[in-house]
Formats: sequence, C-alpha cells, structure tokens
Amino acid sequence: MATLKVPATVPSPTDDAEQLRKAFKGWGTNERLIISILAHRTAAQRRAIRSIYAQTYGEELLKSLDDEISGDFERAVVLWTLDPAERDAQLANEVVRKWHQSNLVLIEIACARTSDELFQVRRAYQARYKRSLEEDVAAHTSGDFRKLLVPLVSAYRYEGIEVNNSLAKSEAKLLHEKISEKAYSHEELVRIISTRSKPQLIATLNQYKNEYGKTINKDLNSDPKNEYLAALRAVIRCICCPERYFEKVIRLAIKGLGTDENALTRVITTRADVDLKVIEEAYYKRNSLPLVSAVKGDTSGDYKDMLIALLGHDI
Amino acid sequence: MATLKVPATVPSPTDDAEQLRKAFKGWGTNERLIISILAHRTAAQRRAIRSIYAQTYGEELLKSLDDEISGDFERAVVLWTLDPAERDAQLANEVVRKWHQSNLVLIEIACARTSDELFQVRRAYQARYKRSLEEDVAAHTSGDFRKLLVPLVSAYRYEGIEVNNSLAKSEAKLLHEKISEKAYSHEELVRIISTRSKPQLIATLNQYKNEYGKTINKDLNSDPKNEYLAALRAVIRCICCPERYFEKVIRLAIKGLGTDENALTRVITTRADVDLKVIEEAYYKRNSLPLVSAVKGDTSGDYKDMLIALLGHDI
Repeated sequence: MATLKVPATVPSPTDDAEQLRKAFKGWGTNERLIISILAHRTAAQRRAIRSIYAQTYGEELLKSLDDEISGDFERAVVLWTLDPAERDAQLANEVVRKWHQSNLVLIEIACARTSDELFQVRRAYQARYKRSLEEDVAAHTSGDFRKLLVPLVSAYRYEGIEVNNSLAKSEAKLLHEKISEKAYSHEELVRIISTRSKPQLIATLNQYKNEYGKTINKDLNSDPKNEYLAALRAVIRCICCPERYFEKVIRLAIKGLGTDENALTRVITTRADVDLKVIEEAYYKRNSLPLVSAVKGDTSGDYKDMLIALLGHDI
Repeated sequence: MATLKVPATVPSPTDDAEQLRKAFKGWGTNERLIISILAHRTAAQRRAIRSIYAQTYGEELLKSLDDEISGDFERAVVLWTLDPAERDAQLANEVVRKWHQSNLVLIEIACARTSDELFQVRRAYQARYKRSLEEDVAAHTSGDFRKLLVPLVSAYRYEGIEVNNSLAKSEAKLLHEKISEKAYSHEELVRIISTRSKPQLIATLNQYKNEYGKTINKDLNSDPKNEYLAALRAVIRCICCPERYFEKVIRLAIKGLGTDENALTRVITTRADVDLKVIEEAYYKRNSLPLVSAVKGDTSGDYKDMLIALLGHDI
C-alpha cells in the first residue's frame, strides 16, 4: 500500500507546469508550492507535467529544479520526479561508479522490484548511459560479489504463483549443504537465489526452516562483519519480506546522531507509491514510534516537508 | 535480407484461414495449398491467420496442422507458423530438456538475435513453460557451459553503435592473456563476451587480430574435439558473422550421406524472414553450389517443397 496522496481533482499538467514555473520565478523560490504539486502526483502525472513543461518553457523541469533548489531537498524532489525506471537506473549508476561491498542498492533494485520493473530499469539504464546495466556491474565488481550481482541484475524471474514442492525440498537441502560447508558463493546457491521465481524461493526457504530449524538468514549470520553474507541476507529479505528490509534501512538511516539522508530519501522516494504504508507499519511495530515522527525528529526544512508529504501527512 | 516472398496482394486472414480449412478437409490433405499460403506470409500475417482460424473453427491452427501432416514437413510448417519468439522458446526448451554440450541452439538464440528479440523469447518461454529460460538453463547445465550459457541467455546487450577504442584494446589484451593461459572459462573472458555490445565486441576482436596476428577463433581452436571451445567459437561467429555461422550449420546438415533435418529446418525457418538471402550467398561462395540445389538434392516430398518455398523459389 502506497502513502502517496493524490487530490480528488487533479489540475491539468498544463496548470501544474505553469504553477511550477511560477514557483521558480521572482525573488526566491516557492518550495511549498513545488511540494504541494509534485509530491501529490502519480508517476504518469509527473511524466505529463515534465513533458508539457519542456514543451512550454524550452527547458527540462529537472534542470529548472536543479537551478532553483539544492541539497537534500533537491535530491528528494528530483529522485521523486523521475520515472521509477529512470530513478532506479540513476541510483544503480551512482552505486556502480563508486561501488563498495557494503552498498545494497543494486540488490534492492534487482530483488525488490517486479521482473518487468527490473527490465524497464535495464532499458532506462541503456537509454541514459549507453551501456547495459549488467555490463557496468560486471566491469566494476569482482569476486563473490560479481558472481552474485550480475545474475541478480540480469534476472527476469517467472512471476506465476505455481510452486514445485519437491523442488523446494531438494533445493532447501542443497542450500543447507552449501551453507553448512560455508560455500556461500557456490554456484548452486547463487543459481537458486538468482533464477527461481519468488514464490518458489519462498517455498524453498520455508522448507529450509521446517527441515533445519533455523531461518536461512540466521544461518547466513555466522560472521556479522562479512559483507558478502550481509548482501546474501539482503537478497533474501528483499525477496521474502521487502517491507522489513526497507524498515531496517530506514531505521539504520535515522538511528544514532547523524542521519543517512541518501538512504532515507531513496527508500521514501522509491516506495511512496508502492508499499510505504506497509513499511510504516513495520517501522511502528519495530520501534514503537510512528515513522513520520521519527522523520520529523531527524530532518528539517523543505527536505523534511517533502518527505512528510510523500509519507502522506500534512506539512 | 530475407528470402520470404509475400504476394503483392495478400488475401485477408479470413480467406487464408478458410483455404487452410479446405486444405485439411475431405479425402487427403492438400499440402501444396498449405505451403502456398503459410510459406508466403509474414509473421504478423501468420499470427492473424492463427487468430481468425481459432475463432472460426474452435481449434488452434497448429493443432489442425498436427492432425493433418507429419514428419519433417510438419515440423517445418509448425516451426515456421509460430511467432519468432514462440518458436525460439520452443527450440530452447527442446534443447534444455535433453541438453548436450555439442548442441549450439541456445548460443544461436542468445547471440544471433537482437536484444529485444532475445527478451521476447524469455517472455514467450515463461508464458509457455511457466519457468524462466535462465532458470531452466541454469538447472540443466553445469560446469563451464553453465558459466557461459546463463549470462548469454540473460543478456540484454546495449545496441548503440558507440565503440570505446581504449576499452577494446584493454579487453583484447585480457582475452589474449586468458586464452594464452588456456583459461577459457575465466570469468573475465565470459564477462566480456556475454555483456559487451556487439559493436564493442567486434572492435575488441579486430583489435585482437591486429595486435596478436590471429583471429580469436583460430586461437580458440587448439583442441578441435573440445566442445566448450566449439561453443565459444559459435558465440563469436553468431555475434560477428551470423551468416557464416548459419552457412556452416546448413553445410554440415547437408554434408555426407544422411541429412540433419532438424538443423536444416531450424536455420531455414528462423532465418527466412531475416537474412537467409545472405546465408544463401555465403553458401554459394563456400560450396560453389546454390543452396536451393543442395536442399533439393538432400530432401524430398512436401518437406522439400516447404523449404524451397521458404528459400523464395518456385516449387
């Protein structure tokens, strides 16, 4: 369930584009107006506004936003304004160019999207960067991470709900064997988690727990400092319980003294029109604090207002 | 260039469906009529005929064909009548179910199609078999072949013509190193040939030849009996010179006493509306014999007539 709130009567894209232009003009920028429009439109509506804006004013809306606003607020508005596939392509490219083992964004994009969404990301990536996503991932990663990430970003998983129980049984056994041998990057393990359909994989992991007494992620937590194991656990969580995965990303982003604005912005802009409501519920359950209060406590100014608006609350 | 010949005035799909129904009815089947219609329609036209036929007669055209005709003739007509993506999905599934290292069909489908065509094959595969293509390939292959085939069938290569020359130089060097070390399944080698765009890969292979004096396929021919090396050479040929690859498949299918009808049918039905004319030219150049004469000499009956019609000649 999404948190995005769209008004009952939506102005025409032409009116929205005109209002945005007004928000940019004159002395200072009207940030509230920008938020009141963009944070309350669907992806298709934002696309229409961008198209009309470029036709009318001879400049890309994203360029105007870049000129008028800045910092975390700009990043939140720009990421949100992009089409979901373009946004993911940009996030993936940022990560790939300065790739670090602890970064889980590629896994998020590969595993917490539908098969068709991931494919659209691959198309958008090519259109923008003139290379394929898997080509860049393969060229910028190495070792166990490459063995895992390239098939994950290249996957086009079957999405039917059919489950083969005897296969779930035999592959649970195989996974357990490899994990017991600490062969975490064994090609059979990677094959299973990168090619099987999500319902099939969930059946396999249920079988794993029933048969061997612990969840696979417990067994993949033998060394909390091992970043490859953390990546494997993220794959499993993005596939089996994305809302709990995203809750944790937000929790860690907010926790402690500083805030990880990049992570917070990413989760809120990528999930506001998907399942942010469910993530909010998971957050409340885990932290006994409404997500909106936590966000208000940790952010400020227009950036805060943008996130609160995307969370579906009044600013 | 295609060999497919479509009449200047094409009957409506309704008329075609009616004629086909007539060809099936009564005493015996009118094979000539079947050929005269189906072998002279584009994929879109055949699709329209199938759709109208099913609506009108309450039976799939492919089912009627299966009841009325048989053997090599049936296989040629049925494969041809399928949509290209469905046909490739069927061919891939046949191969995967009884996979053998010497079989190059998966490589053909992965490397001698455009990126979008390959993606459509993956979609068609899921629609028909309720599993993903890469899932089946990964589950039914092993060792070096799996390392090569899974990324190849999962690829969505960039199709722009941009070439990075310094990258071509460095990757030619890398390929030469790995081949010199006989590390033919090294992950860097597989990465390069399975993810780079075709123009980029061709530039790399030109660089390889300029720098090291021999084509990569000469260097990959150190052991003619090694089937993995044969697979690698097929990848290179399907990407760099598909017409020469297909010429060779046809040549070997026809050569000697028996005929490999499966291979002959596959190449003619998959290439008749793509580049069979160019393959014909390559065949003539290599064998000093027109392909149509070779096919006439090696086949007979309705099967022969179907192939000749697809080759664009009168039967």
